[in-house]
Amino acid sequence: MPNPALLEVFESPTDTTFLIEHIAEEFTSVCPKTGHPDFGVVTVRFQPDATCVELKSLKLYLHSFRNEGIFYEAVTNRIRDDLVTCMSPRWLEVVTDWRGRGGIRSRITADHGTRA
Amino acid sequence: MPNPALLEVFESPTDTTFLIEHIAEEFTSVCPKTGHPDFGVVTVRFQPDATCVELKSLKLYLHSFRNEGIFYEAVTNRIRDDLVTCMSPRWLEVVTDWRGRGGIRSRITADHGTRA
Amino acid sequence: MPNPALLEVFESPTDTTFLIEHIAEEFTSVCPKTGHPDFGVVTVRFQPDATCVELKSLKLYLHSFRNEGIFYEAVTNRIRDDLVTCMSPRWLEVVTDWRGRGGIRSRITADHGTRA
Amino acid sequence: MPNPALLEVFESPTDTTFLIEHIAEEFTSVCPKTGHPDFGVVTVRFQPDATCVELKSLKLYLHSFRNEGIFYEAVTNRIRDDLVTCMSPRWLEVVTDWRGRGGIRSRITADHGTRA
Amino acid sequence: MPNPALLEVFESPTDTTFLIEHIAEEFTSVCPKTGHPDFGVVTVRFQPDATCVELKSLKLYLHSFRNEGIFYEAVTNRIRDDLVTCMSPRWLEVVTDWRGRGGIRSRITADHGTRA
Amino acid sequence: MPNPALLEVFESPTDTTFLIEHIAEEFTSVCPKTGHPDFGVVTVRFQPDATCVELKSLKLYLHSFRNEGIFYEAVTNRIRDDLVTCMSPRWLEVVTDWRGRGGIRSRITADHGTRA
Amino acid sequence: MPNPALLEVFESPTDTTFLIEHIAEEFTSVCPKTGHPDFGVVTVRFQPDATCVELKSLKLYLHSFRNEGIFYEAVTNRIRDDLVTCMSPRWLEVVTDWRGRGGIRSRITADHGTRA
Amino acid sequence: MPNPALLEVFESPTDTTFLIEHIAEEFTSVCPKTGHPDFGVVTVRFQPDATCVELKSLKLYLHSFRNEGIFYEAVTNRIRDDLVTCMSPRWLEVVTDWRGRGGIRSRITADHGTRA
Amino acid sequence: MPNPALLEVFESPTDTTFLIEHIAEEFTSVCPKTGHPDFGVVTVRFQPDATCVELKSLKLYLHSFRNEGIFYEAVTNRIRDDLVTCMSPRWLEVVTDWRGRGGIRSRITADHGTRA
Amino acid sequence: MPNPALLEVFESPTDTTFLIEHIAEEFTSVCPKTGHPDFGVVTVRFQPDATCVELKSLKLYLHSFRNEGIFYEAVTNRIRDDLVTCMSPRWLEVVTDWRGRGGIRSRITADHGTRA
Repeated sequence: MPNPALLEVFESPTDTTFLIEHIAEEFTSVCPKTGHPDFGVVTVRFQPDATCVELKSLKLYLHSFRNEGIFYEAVTNRIRDDLVTCMSPRWLEVVTDWRGRGGIRSRITADHGTRA
Repeated sequence: MPNPALLEVFESPTDTTFLIEHIAEEFTSVCPKTGHPDFGVVTVRFQPDATCVELKSLKLYLHSFRNEGIFYEAVTNRIRDDLVTCMSPRWLEVVTDWRGRGGIRSRITADHGTRA
Repeated sequence: MPNPALLEVFESPTDTTFLIEHIAEEFTSVCPKTGHPDFGVVTVRFQPDATCVELKSLKLYLHSFRNEGIFYEAVTNRIRDDLVTCMSPRWLEVVTDWRGRGGIRSRITADHGTRA
Repeated sequence: MPNPALLEVFESPTDTTFLIEHIAEEFTSVCPKTGHPDFGVVTVRFQPDATCVELKSLKLYLHSFRNEGIFYEAVTNRIRDDLVTCMSPRWLEVVTDWRGRGGIRSRITADHGTRA
Repeated sequence: MPNPALLEVFESPTDTTFLIEHIAEEFTSVCPKTGHPDFGVVTVRFQPDATCVELKSLKLYLHSFRNEGIFYEAVTNRIRDDLVTCMSPRWLEVVTDWRGRGGIRSRITADHGTRA
Repeated sequence: MPNPALLEVFESPTDTTFLIEHIAEEFTSVCPKTGHPDFGVVTVRFQPDATCVELKSLKLYLHSFRNEGIFYEAVTNRIRDDLVTCMSPRWLEVVTDWRGRGGIRSRITADHGTRA
Repeated sequence: MPNPALLEVFESPTDTTFLIEHIAEEFTSVCPKTGHPDFGVVTVRFQPDATCVELKSLKLYLHSFRNEGIFYEAVTNRIRDDLVTCMSPRWLEVVTDWRGRGGIRSRITADHGTRA
Repeated sequence: MPNPALLEVFESPTDTTFLIEHIAEEFTSVCPKTGHPDFGVVTVRFQPDATCVELKSLKLYLHSFRNEGIFYEAVTNRIRDDLVTCMSPRWLEVVTDWRGRGGIRSRITADHGTRA
Repeated sequence: MPNPALLEVFESPTDTTFLIEHIAEEFTSVCPKTGHPDFGVVTVRFQPDATCVELKSLKLYLHSFRNEGIFYEAVTNRIRDDLVTCMSPRWLEVVTDWRGRGGIRSRITADHGTRA
Repeated sequence: MPNPALLEVFESPTDTTFLIEHIAEEFTSVCPKTGHPDFGVVTVRFQPDATCVELKSLKLYLHSFRNEGIFYEAVTNRIRDDLVTCMSPRWLEVVTDWRGRGGIRSRITADHGTRA
């Protein structure tokens, strides 16, 4: 199940505002209604304050959703909340792009703070 | 015929403003003038207030246009109105992209409220 | 329901062997199991003998599947049989490409005779 | 020759501001200098006031340029003027995209009013 | 109307067998049934014997179909016949790709001789 | 774990040889060495003899690999063997396309019988 | 060598502000350092005041750089200056896109005036 | 190791503000954690003040990272700092796009000054 | 003018048959009829016997056509002949792809020997 | 320098003939003439006999070319020879696709044995 304790950070290499974007193309969780797997792409964009999320820890954290029954909207807001808690970024945006179900593709976007 | 009673909602998982986009790539209705089928893609984008439209109910609602004779402009405004009625979103936009007729492709856009 | 009586032919403009390909990108029928609509692309390729199928009649024939409950494999073989009956072509191939259901896209191919 | 009398309108299905875009991919006219045919794509975008241009009448109007000797810039401004006259839209934009001549492709844009 | 007298040839620069392909992306003729314009791409491939068709003359010949009412199949066989008559090539193939009508795109192929 | 008992068949709708292709774009299993998830696309092509695999049962069978630790080569041969056992097709081919690991993408192909 | 005397203008067909874009995909000049040819795409966008550059004269002007040894940055500013001199446009932008040298592609943008 | 002494500049050919963009598609460095090579695309955009970086010197400078163990974020900020030091541009942006590691692609953006 | 003396070879690194393909995307010559520049892509494929053409010498040889007035067909056969003379390959094929003139793109193919 | 001792194999999971393809998109070596880095994509396709090359060992072997000065043709034949020595496959093909140098892209193909 989703495990934010997996997330690790490292100190930002600069004091100036800059932008980091990680695109995880191999996300999967489970539909809580049907039990069928959902597949999507998770994009995380942020302007760090003091710390940046470490890439391998982000990968393991995203893998922890693999067998979790959870809706698209909840996945997106959950990742936003967990990353804000661990990094306290100046600005952060999470976008999830889901492959089609019944001919409908979905994209959910949640953010935090104001982009400089 | 178009049946807004098919639409169901669920409670938004968060109070913060976020963005949901559903892209239904398999929409079909009928041209009221010629009786020939029209095919298009319907995109619904919204920032929910208290509730979000449930995905499967949205699919069934869109299927209810299948044998309806209705113009492009009317389809677009009808979907906008029905979704605003059922969800009262902070902001909503409906875009319909229609495959060509006589060498002309069309796109109609209708919205409601102000995007945050 | 599928209506082969809609198919009309015209006399081939030449005695030499040549190749005709029609790609109907707006085919829809209904899944007999779930009642949900199926969407696909139907490609018809043939080398005519004495007659060629008329384009508008082909369109109306394909539209006659719109509300028929019928499986992918049956659609493909049915179109092959109906076109062979009406045209007696030297060679004919029908390919149907179906949009995904549950994350699986399908393509069915049926033919008749030998391509010169 | 270009015939604005071919244009017909229908009453807008709503009082709210919405956006219509028609993309005619099969436009052809004649270069008045060389007599060679020109081929292009004509895109018409508008926010209607009380009326919308009817799609089939738009197609016939565009076909009326087929054997007219007329420059790119004049085609674009002419279509803008004729559509403004027939519809009095709140906002309208005409974009013409021309295939290359002597290795140079061209795009001309003319508009009217202010987009809401 | 189609005018094969416009076709000119030049002497092949070599005795060895080689392959020439010309792709005319701006072909238009008229549907004899509806009077509406048809748009397509005409591809001519050949292995010359003693002569090759001159490029500008090919362009003018193709332009001569502009206001001719003629079906897809007849256009294709007509171009094949006219080019065989003027060049006597070892092998020649004409492929016409037509933009959609009523949601159906078409491709017609006619050839002459045997490709080395 | 992979469960061939999930596979169901239905009777082929025709005696003539035809071709079926299913492309499952959402396959995932686990690397037995690292425990990390693998993601791929599984394509199944076959010419049925008396029976065809039912589409929903194929989906559930493929989902049964979700938490199995198994190498690319073994997945591919396993699916080939299970489908041959359940359908006894005239010809069958399984292709698996795996997303990159360490900058290397892989594709494995296994078949059975001779394509008509 | 670059010859602005080749540039000709014609009177703008309208007093309203509109936008013209010409994309010349076949530009070549010579690197003054190595003597090797450079290849690029030159895009000219402008809002005319009283006159517009004539298309064929623009082509011949661009061809006059063919054997000139000149850097990317100088080409771009030179074309901007020559076009401003001949047309006195309300706004003009020149973008040059150069194919890679040593694995590096370049794009240079220069403009004049303020876009309406 | 990264060597800013390799960077050379030349005098800007104009006093007006213009924009230069160099896209180096063949960048490679080494992951300091695993020792595995990283591959990416480095884009440098700037509005020069008095001087512009010379293209071949930029290439050699980027090559000097080839065997350096350095994180994505540090590469990006390092290139930004070195280019600002050598050119004192009015505005500069460095974007690095990295190929996937463990299914995650990354893009880092750092800038300096204000774009005119 | 075309200068085969620029071509240099090196000894093939193996006795086994293998395949080399060079794609020169920046070829330009001049139309002998109009004096306008032609732009194309030249692809050279061969199975070497004892020697292979050196890459930089091939580039300089292709540049030597820059200001030569020569037809498409003659360019292609000329390159074929010059490369056969300098390398005596087991098999060689030259393909030239030319950008459009008057809406017609062309491709010419000439070969020598038999591909193993 | 290239180190075939890094290559490891595992036992083939089946006796039947099947096909494995690995595409390494991040290959780099050094041009022995100029000292500049070369970047390419290495594709290895084979039908195993008793053993298959292990994926991570293949990655490390390809990385061992990173600072080796070696021509395109020699890289390709060297990889072919090293893989044939370690696996004794029934059939093997190595294709290297190199990014452009001086506007010329190259592809080299070497194989061993006969594909079943």
